[in-house]
Amino acid sequence: MSLNHFIDEALSPWMREEGPDSDIVMSSRIRLARNFSDVVFPIIADERELRRVTDFIGNEFADKSFKEYENFEYVQMANLSTIEKRMLIEKHLISPVLLKRTGTSAMLISENEQVSIMVNEEDHIRLQLYLPGFQLEETLNRAFELDDWLEQKIDYAYDEKWGYLSSCPTNAGTGMRASVMMHLPGLVITRQVNRLIPAINQLGLVVRGLYGEGSEARGNIFQISNQITMGKSEADIVSDLESIVRQLIDHERKARKHLQEQSGMRLEDRIFRSYGVLQHSRILDSKEAAKCLSNVRLGIDLGIIKEISGQILNELMILTQPGFLQHYADGVLAAEDRDVLRATLVRERLLMEN
Amino acid sequence: MSLNHFIDEALSPWMREEGPDSDIVMSSRIRLARNFSDVVFPIIADERELRRVTDFIGNEFADKSFKEYENFEYVQMANLSTIEKRMLIEKHLISPVLLKRTGTSAMLISENEQVSIMVNEEDHIRLQLYLPGFQLEETLNRAFELDDWLEQKIDYAYDEKWGYLSSCPTNAGTGMRASVMMHLPGLVITRQVNRLIPAINQLGLVVRGLYGEGSEARGNIFQISNQITMGKSEADIVSDLESIVRQLIDHERKARKHLQEQSGMRLEDRIFRSYGVLQHSRILDSKEAAKCLSNVRLGIDLGIIKEISGQILNELMILTQPGFLQHYADGVLAAEDRDVLRATLVRERLLMEN
Repeated sequence: MSLNHFIDEALSPWMREEGPDSDIVMSSRIRLARNFSDVVFPIIADERELRRVTDFIGNEFADKSFKEYENFEYVQMANLSTIEKRMLIEKHLISPVLLKRTGTSAMLISENEQVSIMVNEEDHIRLQLYLPGFQLEETLNRAFELDDWLEQKIDYAYDEKWGYLSSCPTNAGTGMRASVMMHLPGLVITRQVNRLIPAINQLGLVVRGLYGEGSEARGNIFQISNQITMGKSEADIVSDLESIVRQLIDHERKARKHLQEQSGMRLEDRIFRSYGVLQHSRILDSKEAAKCLSNVRLGIDLGIIKEISGQILNELMILTQPGFLQHYADGVLAAEDRDVLRATLVRERLLMEN
Repeated sequence: MSLNHFIDEALSPWMREEGPDSDIVMSSRIRLARNFSDVVFPIIADERELRRVTDFIGNEFADKSFKEYENFEYVQMANLSTIEKRMLIEKHLISPVLLKRTGTSAMLISENEQVSIMVNEEDHIRLQLYLPGFQLEETLNRAFELDDWLEQKIDYAYDEKWGYLSSCPTNAGTGMRASVMMHLPGLVITRQVNRLIPAINQLGLVVRGLYGEGSEARGNIFQISNQITMGKSEADIVSDLESIVRQLIDHERKARKHLQEQSGMRLEDRIFRSYGVLQHSRILDSKEAAKCLSNVRLGIDLGIIKEISGQILNELMILTQPGFLQHYADGVLAAEDRDVLRATLVRERLLMEN
């Protein structure tokens, strides 16, 4: 496979676009959990019932378009290889939970990959929409429109008192999880992050690493989302989250400024050494790759590295994941072979940039 | 100062030449200790006596030529700045001991910097001659010719039974120290060096780091020399040393081959990462610089790095020493400022190469 083609596959088109504050907020996401009113919820449903849901979604929505989300593709998990499924997770288009019952789970995805709808994950429907940068309100409005579009065909399980019903009570009510993916190297280098995360948790928000619950914040990328889905409107949840994210952006900008002013040479040294590792290493594990990509991205955002473009972090973060590496190699690779291929890929990608 | 001019100053002309086995043996050196028969030895002489020696040498040999060693320059240590003296040490043209009595010590140096004669170091005369690569016999023959040239004017302290007399008994007899500077990264990486050095010591040879007694083997550079100066002829001492060095060369070549065959990718990774550090770091201490220069030199010798020339190790090893850095900066620098300048210099030097 050519590297160009491979990169095209790894990057969803929206990832190439800049958004508000996208030097710090990589993406905004709204996820809505919905269920059919007349089908048992997935966690206790049998295969026949689950298949009713997938069949219905496939019949009603495959190849349809709604606004800019064109040609929804209906993909059954059973038809994908292990590596393909892994790549979808690495692109954040599906969650690992969707693969628990691959015989009866599916995905509906728009051509621009901004919208992916998981079918028979923990709930019958998990609609998610991404926008680049920091624009949660806009993301929410668009998610609502998509939700209405689905609702024209689906009778949702909804209770006047409890709101949308879901498999897990923590998702009931709005059924909404709003989240942002933030690159916070300044707060990590200055160690403020150790103080800030507990404070954010106290405010009812959840901080995770790049690959969800329990994952570490590789590459200094943090996912911030609401914990509570009930008792507040979607707009209020988003607005509360936005105000915290706004503060984090301010803190991060101040930390970056402080680092540049107080220890500019050490910061440059850190950034350029990482650039050197990416350009030269022959064996590169994913943890070091993430660390170096973060430093280089910081260098780009601060104007210290000028010759490469900022989307390289987002892109290489995905390209260097095990699934994508194996897709590129067209076969299963042992960890050490992945480390060699990862180094090769990163080097070649950077050469393309120069 | 322009970098080009600075490099010219740092490198003695002979260092630019290749010699036999110069991928492993950087230089061969013969040093002869001699004393005037009619002057008290330096360690106990008073200033008036020491001055007799320097005056004599200055009068008889300043601006003279002998064979290819032209225009001997007579330099009194008292006329040099601290930084200039340091640079001479870093180029291995004088020893730190010569600076113990700077009021009465001097140096006679040929234009091509192959020959330097220290006056009133531990002995009245310390003649040293360098050749590139592994050619101890030739170096010895040339040193003898120079010795004869000096002896036309000087009556040496010589005893039929003891040979040449010297301040320290460990130098008496031949008064000769033969040494080679070897780059042994293969033996260090494969840890064979820990086994070989004690064995070499047992054979009556001395192994030291790049900057003499007590210095560590930075940049995997080892100085191997004879311990004993008495009881054997100069030719026998040199021939015994040569046979050990020959064996070390063989071991080093085998180690390099083994590393390439058994762990080629890890070796390449190590080499290119070091190259990356040299090309990109903004703060570089001398220890890390030496380590990286050694790895890159190994990469060049193995044909893994092709775009830069092999003499870069010899050159940058000297250029990045504190004295040269301060000479380049034209003033005294704190350690951290030296680390920044060292990184800058190395980067610029490598850019010149590409």
